[in-house]
Amino acid sequence: MEPTSLDQMSKGCYDLEARIDDMNVNGVLGSMCFASVPGFVGELFGRQVKQNGEKELAITMLRAYNDWHSDEWCAKYPGRFIPLALPPLRDPQLMAEEVRRMAKKGVHAITFPDTPGGLDYPSIHSDHWDPFWKACSDEGTVVCIHIGSGTGMNLQDPTASVEVMIASTPITLFNCATELIYTDALQKFPDLKFALSEGGIGWVPYFPERLDYTHEHHNKWTHHTFPNGKKPSDVFREHIITCFIDDKAGLELRDQIGIDNITWECDYPHSDSTWPTAPERLWESVKDLPEQDVHAITWRNTCRHFQYDPFAQIPKDKATVGALRAQATHVDLSLKAGSGGKPPSDYAKGYVTIGDIMKQMADAFATPFDNDARD
Amino acid sequence: MEPTSLDQMSKGCYDLEARIDDMNVNGVLGSMCFASVPGFVGELFGRQVKQNGEKELAITMLRAYNDWHSDEWCAKYPGRFIPLALPPLRDPQLMAEEVRRMAKKGVHAITFPDTPGGLDYPSIHSDHWDPFWKACSDEGTVVCIHIGSGTGMNLQDPTASVEVMIASTPITLFNCATELIYTDALQKFPDLKFALSEGGIGWVPYFPERLDYTHEHHNKWTHHTFPNGKKPSDVFREHIITCFIDDKAGLELRDQIGIDNITWECDYPHSDSTWPTAPERLWESVKDLPEQDVHAITWRNTCRHFQYDPFAQIPKDKATVGALRAQATHVDLSLKAGSGGKPPSDYAKGYVTIGDIMKQMADAFATPFDNDARD
Repeated sequence: MEPTSLDQMSKGCYDLEARIDDMNVNGVLGSMCFASVPGFVGELFGRQVKQNGEKELAITMLRAYNDWHSDEWCAKYPGRFIPLALPPLRDPQLMAEEVRRMAKKGVHAITFPDTPGGLDYPSIHSDHWDPFWKACSDEGTVVCIHIGSGTGMNLQDPTASVEVMIASTPITLFNCATELIYTDALQKFPDLKFALSEGGIGWVPYFPERLDYTHEHHNKWTHHTFPNGKKPSDVFREHIITCFIDDKAGLELRDQIGIDNITWECDYPHSDSTWPTAPERLWESVKDLPEQDVHAITWRNTCRHFQYDPFAQIPKDKATVGALRAQATHVDLSLKAGSGGKPPSDYAKGYVTIGDIMKQMADAFATPFDNDARD
Repeated sequence: MEPTSLDQMSKGCYDLEARIDDMNVNGVLGSMCFASVPGFVGELFGRQVKQNGEKELAITMLRAYNDWHSDEWCAKYPGRFIPLALPPLRDPQLMAEEVRRMAKKGVHAITFPDTPGGLDYPSIHSDHWDPFWKACSDEGTVVCIHIGSGTGMNLQDPTASVEVMIASTPITLFNCATELIYTDALQKFPDLKFALSEGGIGWVPYFPERLDYTHEHHNKWTHHTFPNGKKPSDVFREHIITCFIDDKAGLELRDQIGIDNITWECDYPHSDSTWPTAPERLWESVKDLPEQDVHAITWRNTCRHFQYDPFAQIPKDKATVGALRAQATHVDLSLKAGSGGKPPSDYAKGYVTIGDIMKQMADAFATPFDNDARD
């Protein structure tokens, strides 16, 4: 949380060549990069529409971001990135156009908030978003929902240790996933897919079980039905893709999640990351799994869901952890001790609290941007 | 949600003899009854202090409730109930006194909200509650935290199917449990125990794993430490008792929860209940478990944690499912079709929404009480 200028960060956070180096040294072939400065769902641009009515400027900037991300950041190293567009949330028609425009460039992923209401947008239980859902369904574009993108991080009690916020934020997607299962959109657009980005998988075996239990027990009075007598767990397995960093509980019960819907991430460059020893850490969790399950989780599912084919560019024998690391022997892995910027307050309680970080981040955002950007 | 008068409910909701009949017919020996009319944490009495300053009246009524619950409801059928006191939340000293007063009567459980801030009380990350924690620790009284008792049910999107609310409310205790692990109270009072009432166990194998991962990854910058080099999972297993209705995922990974901390409930008389076939439903989940694990989950853990000894009154051979059911052959199990009260609006969407139920419950609460009771 401490860095407030580029020289206090790992160069891989913003420099493409350094990013590839850091992926190589971590044995990672392909990566999906979520936006930080514009926000996970491009809310910086949405804010411009809301505050100044500058719809034209906002969509121009959003398209410029998407073009830069696709044509420069991702395209310069073919096969190394799964491009991810930002949506112009203020207008579902423009969102649909952007989905189709980006799909033509081979971009088949776009972000969306875990709770649109958290950003003052309409509910997913209305038909407001139908043009967007239809475009995603038509183009095979996966809707990627990152933790913290609508309801935000868990900041419930500012006096609690900041570890409370970190530990309990991924599971906020349980609620999001429940809302998704029950949205009419999945009945209207049966090809629509959602990815729960950074939600973990440890809670997921419980998820379809709890939803089926609820539906079985209550549908006689709720009058809720799913098409063709489906259960919530069926809807879940048809539409939801999950993602984990390091979740043994989820892997043990992977059959209850559905092996086809599990993907893996390393969360680089955030502090939850297993970089630069992600392969070793993951291996501890998967070494006893059948080989086909390891392949499904570590690359095959991702390739299929996101229409991502790195091996068109990079032969498989150059895509192994060992081969990638062999290209990265020059990468400096030493810690940047003492150069990390301003510490988060004086942590009067003896440990950093959620409140300390709220203040720290407000200060950080106030440095490069004007006050509007803090709303 | 429909009944608004006693004759529209199962008699076992309010009549002691009918309750025992319903327990017998469901093969249930012992039950812990959470308060409905005064609220899970006696908030009806807290409201009187807040709104009218009537502290003396409030504590008198609360003590009267606790005495009635212990001396009349529970005591009339020895061995059949685990008594549960309500806390006078407005005053931690009075809370401590009430814990000690009730402990003298053999009551070793008391409620507390999942998030005191949700009811406008101070944070658990302060020393405000220390007199209460100390009394509970001294008396071996378990602090029972029921879902919906602080943050309420999940009412995030009123236009969603009410099944969203039902399915996603138990897991709100993930956040509560995280806050508990990080509260300084557990370091000050090492004998303090919390029960997560109705939280389920399907997500629990993930819980200690996620907390340990977070702590391991971040403690170097958060400066959070646990005494004696403990991990969050150690704190969890020492202090937290879990409870489930029907969670296969949790049972499969019971060793990651800790077999000593799992208890079972049937949620009678709510619609999530497995009544009157709870034993059959549970058996499907536990039939392949070692016998000692089944005993731990179905009664031994509960008896130990809550100082509950039904077999002092009732011989074990009279306490089996079969023996209890043999006493209940007269119980009418037919559905009360058509007598359930007012339907929840006209459910314009074709199914009952969260908003329909919010309106229904507001109407229901407005009937017997004045408007203050709806705050």
